[in-house]
Amino acid sequence: MQALMMNTPLMISSILKHAEKNFPQVEMVSVTVDNPRHRQNFKTFARRSRQLANVLESLGAKFGDRIGTLAWNDYRHMELYYAVSGAGMICHTINPRLFPEQVAYIINHAEDKILFVDALVMPLIEALKEHLPKVETVVVLTDKAHMPESSLPNVLCYEELLEAQSDDYDWPEFDENTASGMCYTSGTTGNPKGVVYSHRSTLLHALSGALPDVTGASNLQTTLPVVPMFHVNAWGAPYAALMVGTKLVLPGPKMADGETLTDLMVSEEVTVTSGVPTIWMALLDYLESSNKTIPSLERVSVGGAACPRSIIERFRDQHNCTVVQGWGMTETSPLGTVFALKKGMEDYSTEQITDLQCLQGRGVFGIEMCIVDENNEELPWDGVASGALKVRGNWVAKGYYGLSDEPGSEDCPVDEKGWFQTGDVAAITPEGYLQITDRTKDVIKSGGEWISSIEIENAAVNHPDIAEAAVIGRYHPKWTERPLLIVVMQEGKSLSSEAVSDFLKDKLHKMAMPDGVEFIDELPHTATGKINKLALRETYQDYKFPAA
Amino acid sequence: MQALMMNTPLMISSILKHAEKNFPQVEMVSVTVDNPRHRQNFKTFARRSRQLANVLESLGAKFGDRIGTLAWNDYRHMELYYAVSGAGMICHTINPRLFPEQVAYIINHAEDKILFVDALVMPLIEALKEHLPKVETVVVLTDKAHMPESSLPNVLCYEELLEAQSDDYDWPEFDENTASGMCYTSGTTGNPKGVVYSHRSTLLHALSGALPDVTGASNLQTTLPVVPMFHVNAWGAPYAALMVGTKLVLPGPKMADGETLTDLMVSEEVTVTSGVPTIWMALLDYLESSNKTIPSLERVSVGGAACPRSIIERFRDQHNCTVVQGWGMTETSPLGTVFALKKGMEDYSTEQITDLQCLQGRGVFGIEMCIVDENNEELPWDGVASGALKVRGNWVAKGYYGLSDEPGSEDCPVDEKGWFQTGDVAAITPEGYLQITDRTKDVIKSGGEWISSIEIENAAVNHPDIAEAAVIGRYHPKWTERPLLIVVMQEGKSLSSEAVSDFLKDKLHKMAMPDGVEFIDELPHTATGKINKLALRETYQDYKFPAA
Repeated sequence: MQALMMNTPLMISSILKHAEKNFPQVEMVSVTVDNPRHRQNFKTFARRSRQLANVLESLGAKFGDRIGTLAWNDYRHMELYYAVSGAGMICHTINPRLFPEQVAYIINHAEDKILFVDALVMPLIEALKEHLPKVETVVVLTDKAHMPESSLPNVLCYEELLEAQSDDYDWPEFDENTASGMCYTSGTTGNPKGVVYSHRSTLLHALSGALPDVTGASNLQTTLPVVPMFHVNAWGAPYAALMVGTKLVLPGPKMADGETLTDLMVSEEVTVTSGVPTIWMALLDYLESSNKTIPSLERVSVGGAACPRSIIERFRDQHNCTVVQGWGMTETSPLGTVFALKKGMEDYSTEQITDLQCLQGRGVFGIEMCIVDENNEELPWDGVASGALKVRGNWVAKGYYGLSDEPGSEDCPVDEKGWFQTGDVAAITPEGYLQITDRTKDVIKSGGEWISSIEIENAAVNHPDIAEAAVIGRYHPKWTERPLLIVVMQEGKSLSSEAVSDFLKDKLHKMAMPDGVEFIDELPHTATGKINKLALRETYQDYKFPAA
Repeated sequence: MQALMMNTPLMISSILKHAEKNFPQVEMVSVTVDNPRHRQNFKTFARRSRQLANVLESLGAKFGDRIGTLAWNDYRHMELYYAVSGAGMICHTINPRLFPEQVAYIINHAEDKILFVDALVMPLIEALKEHLPKVETVVVLTDKAHMPESSLPNVLCYEELLEAQSDDYDWPEFDENTASGMCYTSGTTGNPKGVVYSHRSTLLHALSGALPDVTGASNLQTTLPVVPMFHVNAWGAPYAALMVGTKLVLPGPKMADGETLTDLMVSEEVTVTSGVPTIWMALLDYLESSNKTIPSLERVSVGGAACPRSIIERFRDQHNCTVVQGWGMTETSPLGTVFALKKGMEDYSTEQITDLQCLQGRGVFGIEMCIVDENNEELPWDGVASGALKVRGNWVAKGYYGLSDEPGSEDCPVDEKGWFQTGDVAAITPEGYLQITDRTKDVIKSGGEWISSIEIENAAVNHPDIAEAAVIGRYHPKWTERPLLIVVMQEGKSLSSEAVSDFLKDKLHKMAMPDGVEFIDELPHTATGKINKLALRETYQDYKFPAA
């Protein structure tokens, strides 16, 4: 029997309408190339978003078209988020820092006909122009006074286009499973792959993500997402903030600049912020060296990579801030797990709480997760057993743009039982806290045991003379695979293999002790800054362990 | 273009699965007839709910069947909530305190074949047996030792049924718009009408309702819903609590007993609670007379009727608790608006904050609201203009069971533009706070102005000699309608009409001054305790104002 409730599709435009009606005076503060401190409220934002929707129509954009953005975190990018999706097109955010050939691949693969580009990114587009045959229009995200010279044929000015349009626009209603956004993820192998979000997935993600034990988004907060809007929708902040009326502070191209971030946070009284560990390391160093603090800041969300304990401790001890670690992927919108204490932990010591903060958080309602062994058997949540992490839920990808979404097929990340295979190896504590221990492709499968490459790397880099370390599994006649530790020394330092092994002896389980240590001048890295283990495995493909 | 995200239907059973996996040890504490303090954790609860699903199948219940419950707030009623909806049937909660003929009407109208009945309610069912021809099975919510005698043919014992069943049950997945629950609402006219909730509406309501600026549901809380589970799903607490892992304390039949409530709240360290104003008045009186406090209590949610300022002040001054008022209806699941402060109000005085708490709260994401004048023109949110309140959203009814859901038709509460007509008259402040001023059918339309009957009633009952007051509009040759004030005096007191008018003079706008005052021994009330103005209008149908 069908219920007798209204059934409105979950639309991203409903967030904008709610914000305009309920939070017209809430501010959105941005740093842009043309204005070091631009301010507008949600009422103005909503009006300009409607003008932008009219701009899109005037440029010939049609329902379902992919609209590319190469932009930083600012109000114009926010307007694109709402106007493009709201009008039924797909907001395709592109990371301008990728290798140029990857940027071109992504634009061509998505068939973006219109690009909205920050002035700072125009040189990249100029350089790529021969490789973007399908791009018809480039709109520069600036005003007339700041328009750059360009050799491209159809380059338009964002503010001029907006001015020419009415702010009269009715957001359409359509199927909530319609594509609303797109973000390519680049692994170490093959071409980048496009994740395609829906209005439904975006709204459910924003709602669950805003819950008190997740991000706790509120009108009483002021948020500064340092995580880029081209990186999994800035972890959902652009949606959650308007949904609950949170003041938004957007750092534009200045997101890695400690001084600008500090200045913004102090003067705008930012209470919550979010970003990757490297950003926080840099900010903490800046605050320490300049002897500054950010009195309003209460909470720092960290994701994208494991958060070093020192970040958690320094924010706690020097700035009275709680660090909240989470786990997610482009394919999970991204929220999968987020740290929050549980009832019964009121008496935990500071160290016990920090131990928990070093894990990747606990499950968010709407995401199911499990860990499985090599036979695909589910493993217990005992904090010990570790296996391949799988997730499912309404904001998890079921496939990639242009590739098969047939569960179990080669191009599809989802297995026959409907679980998304994250590629991560993890343990889960009895209280439900996730601990990522490795990537499935990097874990060393040795005599039926799984050995975490990350655990060995973390132990090795604790040696003061070691700058960087990587561990890969290599063939071993008895154990099938054993760990090989590859080390980059600090400048002017050297160590013997034996000295490295001696250092590790009391830090690792016997099975995890590397069977070989190699020294190298530099480790290969991917475009997103991760160690390229694929390249390492090629370099050391014929490696033989000394004792084997 | 369709997105490439997983698309699992929003199912109530997903809440149960999430709770079992993530919060197995969280407790559910209940008062029942057979146990003054029953305890079980969510893991046990989930297991028993699966057993109950098997019980339902064994009793022949089919997908879509309405399963009636006449029960208090306890763990067995919670199990019914999850098992009945989870298995694809409709959990039809019935208020045992309605007039017996209304209970019979509701059971017959919904065609409940199976009833789950608290032992205390069995006498009512016995008395009604001749009037319930379609009821095949009655299950008493108790164990074997506490089974009452019964003259009914097929009376079964809940615990015996459960024991006989396996806890092996896979919750099915089906269309999220399937009916999950049913609750009849009784107005002053006509028969009760059935509101039919869906899995989708229930989940979206729970998510939005749990947001930090709404109820802020969290694992760190302990909640005691005093509002009955037969009254709009206890305002959603049974769903929100399991979604985020809140410890639940359920007072069973003892919900109006100040001593039991206090004892439960103190010993179980309850932090949040919810209920109607009369409950809180009684609890505050009990606490005052017994010189007790509830140290853990932080937040009291109030709805169902306007909350007197004294409740807000007494909780604040004597118990350091925040009173949070909300507005909603059976037809709105019920959350429409809930009080929360907004940024910029940090410097408000205590009195200013109390003023805001006396309003009905501000909009929840997912509910749109508007106020309109007599020509259906939208009125501004200026805190002055008042008009008919309309709402729409995914947890708002589009019709009633068995009646037309054709917008604009006589039986349908939804107008041609898709707005649910609440029957309330309200103003909305510029900050978005709702102020209910009257019911549309009670408002007095006098010379083009709307006069609030409630405003006059509130002014009148402030006189120490007046026990109760009701205002209705009566025909007036010049103004079409003018207010008639009907007064019940405190025992042994009397006043003249002129004395009443004198008392009101400086408290009301001139237009709102009643043109007549009548004295009566007792006011007629409806089954739910509201003043029956329909009956009053009949009594005074030929009334003529003295000066007219």
